[in-house]
Amino acid sequence: MPSIAAMAFAPSSSSYSTSLALHPVSSSFSSSSFAPIRAPLIRSTGKLNCLFRLSSSASRMRGPVSPCAVIEKENPETERPDTFLRDSDGENGSMSSSTSVRARFEKMIRDAQDSVCQALEKADGVGKFKEDVWSRPGGGGGISRVLQDGAVWEKAGVNVSVVYGVMPPEAYRAAKAAASDQKPGPVPFFAAGISSVLHPKNPFAPTLHFNYRYFETDAPEDSPGAPKQWWFGGGTDLTPSYIFEDDVRHFHSVQKAACDKFDPSFYPRFKKWCDDYFYIAHRGERRGLGGIFFDDLNEYDLEMLLSFATECANSVVPAYIPIIEKRKNMPFTEQHKAWQQLRRGRYVEFNLVYDRGTTFGLKTGGRIESILVSLPLTARWEYDHKPEHGTEEWKLLDACINPKDWI
Amino acid sequence: MPSIAAMAFAPSSSSYSTSLALHPVSSSFSSSSFAPIRAPLIRSTGKLNCLFRLSSSASRMRGPVSPCAVIEKENPETERPDTFLRDSDGENGSMSSSTSVRARFEKMIRDAQDSVCQALEKADGVGKFKEDVWSRPGGGGGISRVLQDGAVWEKAGVNVSVVYGVMPPEAYRAAKAAASDQKPGPVPFFAAGISSVLHPKNPFAPTLHFNYRYFETDAPEDSPGAPKQWWFGGGTDLTPSYIFEDDVRHFHSVQKAACDKFDPSFYPRFKKWCDDYFYIAHRGERRGLGGIFFDDLNEYDLEMLLSFATECANSVVPAYIPIIEKRKNMPFTEQHKAWQQLRRGRYVEFNLVYDRGTTFGLKTGGRIESILVSLPLTARWEYDHKPEHGTEEWKLLDACINPKDWI
Repeated sequence: MPSIAAMAFAPSSSSYSTSLALHPVSSSFSSSSFAPIRAPLIRSTGKLNCLFRLSSSASRMRGPVSPCAVIEKENPETERPDTFLRDSDGENGSMSSSTSVRARFEKMIRDAQDSVCQALEKADGVGKFKEDVWSRPGGGGGISRVLQDGAVWEKAGVNVSVVYGVMPPEAYRAAKAAASDQKPGPVPFFAAGISSVLHPKNPFAPTLHFNYRYFETDAPEDSPGAPKQWWFGGGTDLTPSYIFEDDVRHFHSVQKAACDKFDPSFYPRFKKWCDDYFYIAHRGERRGLGGIFFDDLNEYDLEMLLSFATECANSVVPAYIPIIEKRKNMPFTEQHKAWQQLRRGRYVEFNLVYDRGTTFGLKTGGRIESILVSLPLTARWEYDHKPEHGTEEWKLLDACINPKDWI
Repeated sequence: MPSIAAMAFAPSSSSYSTSLALHPVSSSFSSSSFAPIRAPLIRSTGKLNCLFRLSSSASRMRGPVSPCAVIEKENPETERPDTFLRDSDGENGSMSSSTSVRARFEKMIRDAQDSVCQALEKADGVGKFKEDVWSRPGGGGGISRVLQDGAVWEKAGVNVSVVYGVMPPEAYRAAKAAASDQKPGPVPFFAAGISSVLHPKNPFAPTLHFNYRYFETDAPEDSPGAPKQWWFGGGTDLTPSYIFEDDVRHFHSVQKAACDKFDPSFYPRFKKWCDDYFYIAHRGERRGLGGIFFDDLNEYDLEMLLSFATECANSVVPAYIPIIEKRKNMPFTEQHKAWQQLRRGRYVEFNLVYDRGTTFGLKTGGRIESILVSLPLTARWEYDHKPEHGTEEWKLLDACINPKDWI
């Protein structure tokens, strides 16, 4: 059993759907210098390996290069540490502006995890979150929280993690406009994120997904002073089985309000990005009714983007909980439930076939239970099911096939 | 909407698990000369694009080349034609030994479809198969049969199809030891296969999967007389939720008997191949308890392999139905059913993440309903579920993690 796990970053092709961009390319696993993918039951990496990818510059690389990053094996912890940062990064360490962003981002996602979980437990009234904490010897770690089979929630997962790793120099070289002929050394990186999927029981109460992440590279080990790379990614999106227009409008309005505080171009741009990303290509449908999604965001001021990610994370509860309160106790039939289960099947299809984080995590020895907590408790596949034209089920499907402007 | 669909063949790396070999590489879709994958609701190709891949020689190719094959859009048919072969291939056409194999293989899989469906309806007693037939203007087509929500079967699909397509010359060139510098033209190919997944309701009755397929290339269009390539692939495997050793021994014994009629090396070799192929890498478990699996088989006499594939297909009913008869009416609890549903979740994970046919079909515009008929009607994912040591559930999991010799 290897003591380290390989994390493979497959470069995306900008000429192709982003939804397939992070499918690992098998050649990245054939090198014996990385841990074999077949290591069974390895608890090697936290949820975070689902939360980030290489920068936009790296993603513009072409060809068979599949840069890999290596991180350490994780250990379970009995208590939550104050921070998962290395001492040198933390609030007690050297407070460069960069380490300060790491510490502030970790604090933000851990605060968001606390407040979202608190709001979810309150809305449920019965279910409580179960917590798993882990850390890595060289720094980094995570907290997974799952509420399963509550009064309102069928399955709700809210995970945070912090990762220190090393990526091969190709990725960093590709990110530099003028690469020298000198072969640089491996590039240390830092990543932190929050990721969550919330599946309610009631078929009229929508599923919610959100995640926000921050990524930084150091200079290559043999090139001190070379420029760092950093970027933000994330989004919040709604997946109902039935459309209540007021609900969808409310949800999108909160996303737009969060965006508009920073840049009027954000909402239209990130709304479209969301519709494009959560696309089940083999069905010709989106997974749900969208929201916002962005990645590789670094063309704005870093402080501004940190505030923006914070605003987005803080908008999850006001965007979602009022909808849950309206729908959680609505009466429903077996037919409503069966349709919800079919849409859950679509959720499984998207996550296992297309979602970057999931496919990436599965193939790189990630912490499986953290990654697959995004799957619903139950799902259903009927052969050749087609909702009758004009029904509520048809309306939902139509909105998934033809994305609408909700506000 | 394009009138043809792209089929992309990603080369497998022999240094890597075969289970990932057919994940399409996104670069294969970026060429504008092929239909975009985003064409929604296209009913473009039959189940068969799940049934074959390039030859072993082609699969030894390395690098970024992703040869693509193009086949026509399908049309629904109201009646089953006598044959899906082109006139020139059929029994009334020129009876070269090659066209004769095509006709005899099609007859074999259609007979097998009939006899398996008949046996399944008889075991069910209530449920009847629903049939969808389609054809393509230039020859080829398929028959999908699905029995859903019967007395015994939760979902049973038995599909046959015949495909005529064209693959790019790189694949054929790679298959020739001494390639000339001349660039050859596209290579026509023929493929036919039967594919089936049978999910019973009773948690003590196992799921069965089988498929058998035959593949042939013509000479490149500008090189008449150049050597043809051909090969057989397929297998039959059992996926129980609970182990009844008698059942598993019976099942493997029938597979071994079919193999032993042809070559004593077949069963041990194809049993191991099956254990290796149906591997859920991120879980460190196999999907089930195996059986036989082989691919790219052409190093034996063609007539011998045709007889072997026929013997295997004819062994499905005697290998499986006696087990169903013993288990279909056994009393069970909600706990047994919940465990079956968790194992169904694993089935979904294997099929959507690793199975060549499924992942290949999904990303190349295949007939979605035929491809995904392999998914169970219902499935379940619980966070961090671990069967207690020594229980029946644990024994099944243990046998999936550590494959056993059953005979």
